[in-house]
Amino acid sequence: MGNHSDGILHSELFDSGILRLTLNDQKRRNALSEDMLARLVDVFSSAATNAEVRVIVLAAEGPAFSAGHDLKEITAARSHEDAGKAYFTELLDTCASVMQLIVSNPKPVIAEVTGVATAAGCQLVASCDLALAADSARFATPGVNIGLFCSTPMVALSRNVANKHAMEMLLTGDMVSASKAEEIGLINRAVAAEKLTAETMAMAAKIASKSAMTLAVGKHAFYRQSEMSLPDAYNYSSQVMVDNMLKHDAEEGIGAFVEKRTPQWKDQ
Amino acid sequence: MGNHSDGILHSELFDSGILRLTLNDQKRRNALSEDMLARLVDVFSSAATNAEVRVIVLAAEGPAFSAGHDLKEITAARSHEDAGKAYFTELLDTCASVMQLIVSNPKPVIAEVTGVATAAGCQLVASCDLALAADSARFATPGVNIGLFCSTPMVALSRNVANKHAMEMLLTGDMVSASKAEEIGLINRAVAAEKLTAETMAMAAKIASKSAMTLAVGKHAFYRQSEMSLPDAYNYSSQVMVDNMLKHDAEEGIGAFVEKRTPQWKDQ
Amino acid sequence: MGNHSDGILHSELFDSGILRLTLNDQKRRNALSEDMLARLVDVFSSAATNAEVRVIVLAAEGPAFSAGHDLKEITAARSHEDAGKAYFTELLDTCASVMQLIVSNPKPVIAEVTGVATAAGCQLVASCDLALAADSARFATPGVNIGLFCSTPMVALSRNVANKHAMEMLLTGDMVSASKAEEIGLINRAVAAEKLTAETMAMAAKIASKSAMTLAVGKHAFYRQSEMSLPDAYNYSSQVMVDNMLKHDAEEGIGAFVEKRTPQWKDQ
Repeated sequence: MGNHSDGILHSELFDSGILRLTLNDQKRRNALSEDMLARLVDVFSSAATNAEVRVIVLAAEGPAFSAGHDLKEITAARSHEDAGKAYFTELLDTCASVMQLIVSNPKPVIAEVTGVATAAGCQLVASCDLALAADSARFATPGVNIGLFCSTPMVALSRNVANKHAMEMLLTGDMVSASKAEEIGLINRAVAAEKLTAETMAMAAKIASKSAMTLAVGKHAFYRQSEMSLPDAYNYSSQVMVDNMLKHDAEEGIGAFVEKRTPQWKDQ
Repeated sequence: MGNHSDGILHSELFDSGILRLTLNDQKRRNALSEDMLARLVDVFSSAATNAEVRVIVLAAEGPAFSAGHDLKEITAARSHEDAGKAYFTELLDTCASVMQLIVSNPKPVIAEVTGVATAAGCQLVASCDLALAADSARFATPGVNIGLFCSTPMVALSRNVANKHAMEMLLTGDMVSASKAEEIGLINRAVAAEKLTAETMAMAAKIASKSAMTLAVGKHAFYRQSEMSLPDAYNYSSQVMVDNMLKHDAEEGIGAFVEKRTPQWKDQ
Repeated sequence: MGNHSDGILHSELFDSGILRLTLNDQKRRNALSEDMLARLVDVFSSAATNAEVRVIVLAAEGPAFSAGHDLKEITAARSHEDAGKAYFTELLDTCASVMQLIVSNPKPVIAEVTGVATAAGCQLVASCDLALAADSARFATPGVNIGLFCSTPMVALSRNVANKHAMEMLLTGDMVSASKAEEIGLINRAVAAEKLTAETMAMAAKIASKSAMTLAVGKHAFYRQSEMSLPDAYNYSSQVMVDNMLKHDAEEGIGAFVEKRTPQWKDQ
């Protein structure tokens, strides 16, 4: 991958294994336009299988992290013969795929939110495994204000925050501050804007220093077991952990810990 | 509906579309007696299909928001031939119906809690989509103190707060302050008692100004998707959102947003 | 049971019905070794059916509450012909059994955490119904640092705290302070170290004063209904509550409440 920019999405792969993605379509407030979604499908799909990528940071240029869907594209599609039905279906399927490519991605994904994340932009933050935000960042699911409930954003939102908090965001459309977002669990924490990138990259570097196999195994199991009953979750996770114990990196990691030396990871 | 009172439940329908319900059986601490439950079934059922009702506020007169079941009625039923079994079954079924009529109601329901909400009274708060409370309000599930675990209240409670918080309330029966209730997610927030009604009605008015169709579609989808796996939730919610996009109110809402004017909602 | 110690696990049964268990294998940092797991299976199994035990407190001696699995035992098993596979499978099955014996135990279990609870030690805290901790206590799931993701600990962790908080602990392996653990719901609250035992024992005494039948019925129903859909949870819990109402202790408890006297519990 290396350092690559196609205008609306900048990607930079660091030697540490951090893939830093930056949404950069400021004139559309980093909307999840057709183009942007297509770029995100590509970049998350290729990162999933690229051994050089160990962790992904998703950032954005400008005052908006992402404003969600592009209302102009939606409005234009209404002139189609089917009033846009086929277009909307395709658009929402692609958007849901992007969100699920984040969740299913073997590499941990960290959102770095400086600006305003609304609607599907808020969903993007909620879909990442971790999220840090500037004190000045704000979050909303304001679809209700334009007659279009944020029904797909709420899938991610409601799996992160308590029901009453999710419902308040969804029913009022109100903006939530970064500190409130931290309090309710939508983000891991809010930090001073000038420190945000440094803190996010430090967290990414820490995670990138772990065994890639271990991160992939654990992240996959996390989401999978969370939808199981307790006995099923234990049966499944015990098996996952036995398999993990038998891998090189677990033997190496435990050995390094006992011998107080730095482990040398090999497994992918 | 208009302005109506039958002694134990006062209801007032405002021009804004806010239906304000007030429990008013103070001598029984607004217990969920047979009579009160019957009134609540009626009022929530008719509100569900009344196009003039856009949002519901559930308030109460007196120091108790609601003390839950009426222990005198329960005790009286013990003299029945079956020791009350048929009566208790009917009572709990009706109570569970009231709670589910709130959840399934297409109109958002906001609890406005000034006093003490205990047992099924606490369940009532937990079952509402949103809840504001006075600083002086308190919450408990104290059934454990009288040998009768709050098993049905915990259905609603445990779907709002983290396990350890729910368990502490259920196993100790202790009172929880409004500020603690806010912290754990049982209510949206605590406000000064003298501002409670104004803040609740302002929140209700804001929600009442949205498209009724959009609120109904979104609320229904919220609870439904929350019990699905992630892929199923996305498939379902994407379909819900496509249908929503094809409605008049979404086209009108997006158009009004782009043209910076107030939308005119039509859909129910 | 009475007062019993076998070196690594001390147990003391108080007249109040509090069974106080103390992990005491300080030289192994109270690791969940084969021996310790076997002792915990025994003690939780026998407590489950011992009518004298009304509530269980799980404490520990020394600076570590529990460091999780014994890495020396794991490393030793790698020399087996199957590289330890059978051993690891048995070990993790036993460990998952201990955790589930806590959850399924009819007696409420309270963790009293003075020191550091890591990996399966953190899982032990998460698996208890309630947890109090000293201000100085700390929590981590650091398996990722040694190439062995905390996949079974996350089953308990992710059922207590929000996804992003769980993921941060799991992906970074970082220590979490007692105050942060309180904030995210991993423990009920942090208290000054010198008051911890007194507060935990007071909470245990309060719970021990309730009807044992009521506690058992309620705890069992809590975890069971939490994995059901809302209508199923209500059907199930309503039935549980009807059965509870027909028990002696509910009649006695309600009678004592009405007559303002102390109830005399009989049911087990």
